[in-house]
Amino acid sequence: MSLFRAAIDRIAGYAPGEQPQDSGWIKLNTNENPYPPSPMVVEAITSAAKGRLNLYPDPLSTAFRRAAADVFNVEPDWILPGNGSDEILTILTRSFVDSHELTVYPYPSYILYETLADIQGARHARMLLNPDWSWDMPAANKWLENARLALIPNPNSPSGNRWDDATLQELVPPQGVLVLDEAYGDFADTPHRAEMLRSPLGKQMVITRTFSKSYSLAGIRFGFAIAHPDLIAGMRKVKDSYNCDAIALAAATAAISDQTWMQANVAKIRTTRQRLDAALRAFGFDVTPSQANFVWATHPDRSHRELYEALKQRKILVRYMVYRDVAWANGGVLDGLRITVGTDAEIDTLLSTLNDILSK
Amino acid sequence: MSLFRAAIDRIAGYAPGEQPQDSGWIKLNTNENPYPPSPMVVEAITSAAKGRLNLYPDPLSTAFRRAAADVFNVEPDWILPGNGSDEILTILTRSFVDSHELTVYPYPSYILYETLADIQGARHARMLLNPDWSWDMPAANKWLENARLALIPNPNSPSGNRWDDATLQELVPPQGVLVLDEAYGDFADTPHRAEMLRSPLGKQMVITRTFSKSYSLAGIRFGFAIAHPDLIAGMRKVKDSYNCDAIALAAATAAISDQTWMQANVAKIRTTRQRLDAALRAFGFDVTPSQANFVWATHPDRSHRELYEALKQRKILVRYMVYRDVAWANGGVLDGLRITVGTDAEIDTLLSTLNDILSK
Repeated sequence: MSLFRAAIDRIAGYAPGEQPQDSGWIKLNTNENPYPPSPMVVEAITSAAKGRLNLYPDPLSTAFRRAAADVFNVEPDWILPGNGSDEILTILTRSFVDSHELTVYPYPSYILYETLADIQGARHARMLLNPDWSWDMPAANKWLENARLALIPNPNSPSGNRWDDATLQELVPPQGVLVLDEAYGDFADTPHRAEMLRSPLGKQMVITRTFSKSYSLAGIRFGFAIAHPDLIAGMRKVKDSYNCDAIALAAATAAISDQTWMQANVAKIRTTRQRLDAALRAFGFDVTPSQANFVWATHPDRSHRELYEALKQRKILVRYMVYRDVAWANGGVLDGLRITVGTDAEIDTLLSTLNDILSK
Repeated sequence: MSLFRAAIDRIAGYAPGEQPQDSGWIKLNTNENPYPPSPMVVEAITSAAKGRLNLYPDPLSTAFRRAAADVFNVEPDWILPGNGSDEILTILTRSFVDSHELTVYPYPSYILYETLADIQGARHARMLLNPDWSWDMPAANKWLENARLALIPNPNSPSGNRWDDATLQELVPPQGVLVLDEAYGDFADTPHRAEMLRSPLGKQMVITRTFSKSYSLAGIRFGFAIAHPDLIAGMRKVKDSYNCDAIALAAATAAISDQTWMQANVAKIRTTRQRLDAALRAFGFDVTPSQANFVWATHPDRSHRELYEALKQRKILVRYMVYRDVAWANGGVLDGLRITVGTDAEIDTLLSTLNDILSK
């Protein structure tokens, strides 16, 4: 007799990227920001630490919601903060998808969405993208017709491309909700500011945002949803009462209030991205033009797994990705390297190491 | 057309206790610890704030699990940390109870358990306690037979009483899991240390613990489960990968490592509890002997709601509790005041204010 739900026994659980706890690594595998957060964040945390930590935090995250609403030009009741955008994605799945109902997402993309559906006991389907990462609309529409939730990272991972608003409008499930997972949204050349939510289909859309990438705060676990207040009110019923702690709230509020700091780091990363892209091409890689803080690189001749292993031996971690059931890929398997844009020094080391490895 | 699951549309959501964001309140309504956390906690947070917050935290919470395992005399793989014991209770419900399956809990008790079952689309049943807070075993057994999860706070809220181990052994569902929610466990005269998990039925038991009460850290949201590694491994599949942030992990690890500080605060609270209990009795209240950091007080003649309102007017918050469908209560409705044990000064103010109110 298993005590667990059958849905839990069936799954292996999501395996996050490697997080070595020892030092000395060049970590280009989980799309962290190589630059530190705003000094205002450290100050806010230090000050909150001396505050009344014995009391529960504000269950409505009022101060943060005001600050985020200002940045996105909405009212505070359009904002729902969470313990990382991971928690927001969990809340979305639990809000909108009943057991045996359907979640859909583009493929290749962020496979966590499948795990979330599995845990919920829901079904999931992959909407196979074209080899150039554009949409096969007729195929997608067949899935969307029956979907309660469509989860679309924009920019996408591992590819780093971004789809335009007109395309995204077509991807709203007629009887469901479209989630635009904008974890990497700030790295785009022209970042969105929730404009999509004002479109006629805006009441069926949710945008998710995280502090783990552009704000350099993967360590504090903070993300939020932006959506019409009717959607936010329902999602709020699903969250734990005090899902955001007093210190993360202080840190996130300080971080979002220092747009200058965030944008300066993003600008540096965009510049380094361009250099990394060009250098990888010069080494013979195919590189998808990226709007994110990582690039997707495939090599026509070399084994991606071997390149990953060779880099890892030299304490450089990149992400080796394998996607099965990709009809248009060789043998149905697409693999490649997803490389985070680190500091200039880190990318220099990566490139010279890669040069050594490739010339052997 | 509602976009939400029917289960979400049906519920109102859990209403947490009032958390006034302005100052000047004597807050005796949500069982916070009136004393600050260990100075080691503030140090750990300040130091973590200067660390690499741009990186993801350890998804396995290794350092914390080691520290907690030491205190509870188990191995680290018996420990699962979470974003407050609220998140642990959510993970438990999602791990063990499928939609339409049954969650049971004692009544009157912590009604959040019903909300968690509702969100899951599961059924829930109340196992009505006797007027002296003892168990009606034949009635309970009928529910337990079909339950996948039994959630029992021990000490219980609002009553503050604790049940003995022999009684708890009888409450393991034959085909399910018994959760002992020990949020208030450290305030008992002889706190448990996971001994129950070594009993023959231990493989069907989970103990939950929180830092919000005895460790004075409601603000950081941290709790954990203790259970056999087979149960922990399955529950881990349900949690978000990085459910505990770097700063909360540092704070909790520091807090659990300073048992002396926690126990000194607990000892003060126990002493004040005794004084509060005696004074309320002298005012004519019936008080349940408490093993927690609050007392449950009912008055034979006075309106509990009016007492609550009168105290609130004077900026003293206690918790006014109402439980319906209590067969043995007058008109089927049990109400009363649940009063957190604050500092001696806070309790002095409460008592003199209550004296004024009662003498009018």
